[in-house]
Amino acid sequence: MRAARYYDAKDIRIEEIDNPTAGPGQVLIDVAWCGICGTDLHEYLDGPIFIPPAGHPHPISGESAPLTIGHEMSGTVAALGEGVEDLEIGQKVVVEPYVIREEHENDQDYQLSPDMNFIGLGGHGGGLAEQIAVRRRWVHPVADHVNLDEAALIEPLAVAHHAFVRSGAKAGDVAVIGGAGPIGALTAAVLKGEGLTVYVSELSELRRQRVLDAGVVNDAFDPREVDVAAKVKELTGGRGADVGFEATSVDVVLEMLLEAVRPGGVIVNESIWGHEPKVPLHQLVLKEIDLRGTIGYAWDHPATIKLIEDGTVDVKPFITGKIGLDDLIDEGFDTLINHNETAVKILVSPTGKGL
Amino acid sequence: MRAARYYDAKDIRIEEIDNPTAGPGQVLIDVAWCGICGTDLHEYLDGPIFIPPAGHPHPISGESAPLTIGHEMSGTVAALGEGVEDLEIGQKVVVEPYVIREEHENDQDYQLSPDMNFIGLGGHGGGLAEQIAVRRRWVHPVADHVNLDEAALIEPLAVAHHAFVRSGAKAGDVAVIGGAGPIGALTAAVLKGEGLTVYVSELSELRRQRVLDAGVVNDAFDPREVDVAAKVKELTGGRGADVGFEATSVDVVLEMLLEAVRPGGVIVNESIWGHEPKVPLHQLVLKEIDLRGTIGYAWDHPATIKLIEDGTVDVKPFITGKIGLDDLIDEGFDTLINHNETAVKILVSPTGKGL
Repeated sequence: MRAARYYDAKDIRIEEIDNPTAGPGQVLIDVAWCGICGTDLHEYLDGPIFIPPAGHPHPISGESAPLTIGHEMSGTVAALGEGVEDLEIGQKVVVEPYVIREEHENDQDYQLSPDMNFIGLGGHGGGLAEQIAVRRRWVHPVADHVNLDEAALIEPLAVAHHAFVRSGAKAGDVAVIGGAGPIGALTAAVLKGEGLTVYVSELSELRRQRVLDAGVVNDAFDPREVDVAAKVKELTGGRGADVGFEATSVDVVLEMLLEAVRPGGVIVNESIWGHEPKVPLHQLVLKEIDLRGTIGYAWDHPATIKLIEDGTVDVKPFITGKIGLDDLIDEGFDTLINHNETAVKILVSPTGKGL
Repeated sequence: MRAARYYDAKDIRIEEIDNPTAGPGQVLIDVAWCGICGTDLHEYLDGPIFIPPAGHPHPISGESAPLTIGHEMSGTVAALGEGVEDLEIGQKVVVEPYVIREEHENDQDYQLSPDMNFIGLGGHGGGLAEQIAVRRRWVHPVADHVNLDEAALIEPLAVAHHAFVRSGAKAGDVAVIGGAGPIGALTAAVLKGEGLTVYVSELSELRRQRVLDAGVVNDAFDPREVDVAAKVKELTGGRGADVGFEATSVDVVLEMLLEAVRPGGVIVNESIWGHEPKVPLHQLVLKEIDLRGTIGYAWDHPATIKLIEDGTVDVKPFITGKIGLDDLIDEGFDTLINHNETAVKILVSPTGKGL
């Protein structure tokens, strides 16, 4: 089968490799769609980061570069390994792409277990291939009425759902999001679906327009034109937002959130920081704000899948491109890097059948 | 009566002013002891900060400098205002020194209410005076067997107790504290009293020795000699501390705590930051750490008083000086500023009767 294999930064190759088989406890999946994630871009531009470099096998998977990438995948069951009896051939599924030791995979916070990594980064196959074999633990069935292209967004949506859970927010709360890139936009979608009032601060007019058009925010502000913290306070009767979400890794955005969130409020940091920001902790102290990290997801997939299945969240507006494996770099990675205002989620059909 | 009046930075005067009287709903207190707080030092050196400057009356108290300072006070009831019937003349009391609007004083988070300030900083009298009249809401009785000098430490101990509550820690947990100054030491005392294992990182040998001698820590490390995060991990079987407390406002200490605390752990920021620190948020994200601000106390006094009344916490080791009002600057402020390794809490007897 054909697969996208990561060798090193700027060196991803489409290669012919052996098809996987469903070992005991595993599910063989025909991959329908696999999204390209910001993490994949980081690995491509500046990696390897999560990916174990050649000669440094990951302690759980035992694998190192080159390895198959892609972790936002949907597909159908192609075969069931020994002992897997609760799925059917042809059934629609998504993968919760974890590489986690079996003794930790049912921990409350399994995403924080030692040496955690991701399928498609740390080994155990990847979604940018025609097939993948995955332990049953990490395979989630999806109702048949859900389109498989939309299902490929369940993984990044689960990231947003986990950030929502970490925030402790509830219906009726007011949220302010810093950034309307892929994660900020999907966070808005989850929060709106969960009944919050959602404001976003975003420099790009195209990104603002997209979240407004998608109906996932109540308003979107340009921070060059609007004092976003002051505006959010005005819109909340002087009180401030209940929760904030940082999705930019820009110092002044975190500063804005510390100002915009009410005393006793929560800020969830969703972004990956490549530098150490200067943080006005004085605000955090005087307002008793909680600044919470969030990584991946844990037990979020069932609730996230339900958001899609029952139509609470519509991810269609965030699918901005569909390509085949041969166009992965030129039309996938390069588009996301060079046109990140118009491109949100580009989906890859490894077999080309979906195109 | 005599009182210490704050005019401006470096300008605190001992003056003769009118005695207060107990208005309706108020309690007149003969002040026995009043501690000097780090906040008072900041006001003296770099203020006014919390203190409303001359000509800028505080929106709740209506007062501005000059005003009476001191907010860590104990004393006995001298008179009861109209409507106050649940206290007795001569009864030992401490003051929870808040200036808060009456409509907010029973909020769950009343410490976060708009324009909150402190008695002895924002007006409503101060503890560095022979008497003070305080609304009954902010007067807490203390059992007769408690010495009034120790009772004067209930206020800073309540700050530490609130930080403990904010941390969500429980008996059996492991805590690491950055700094063994007054707040770090009292935090250690509360945590030890609550059944935690407590480690502290502190540059000063004298401060390390004091918390060791006081029995409020399990061990105290010099961060120049020991990699404290690595040591704490070693002592917790590789896991890391459950909770961390930042009590230094030094960037590298917060960095150490982010390293020393386990995935899913909590760090409470108790320090007041005069600058914006660089924070390795990458750690906070990947470990899903909660960084929580804490300010003052809310509903903490009853539990804090009980820690003293039942002997769970012994604050005697932290009383390092007793002076009269005339020596406030020379033997109080200057000692704390110039000898901050040996001085922890200096108590002032405004009448001189306690000396």
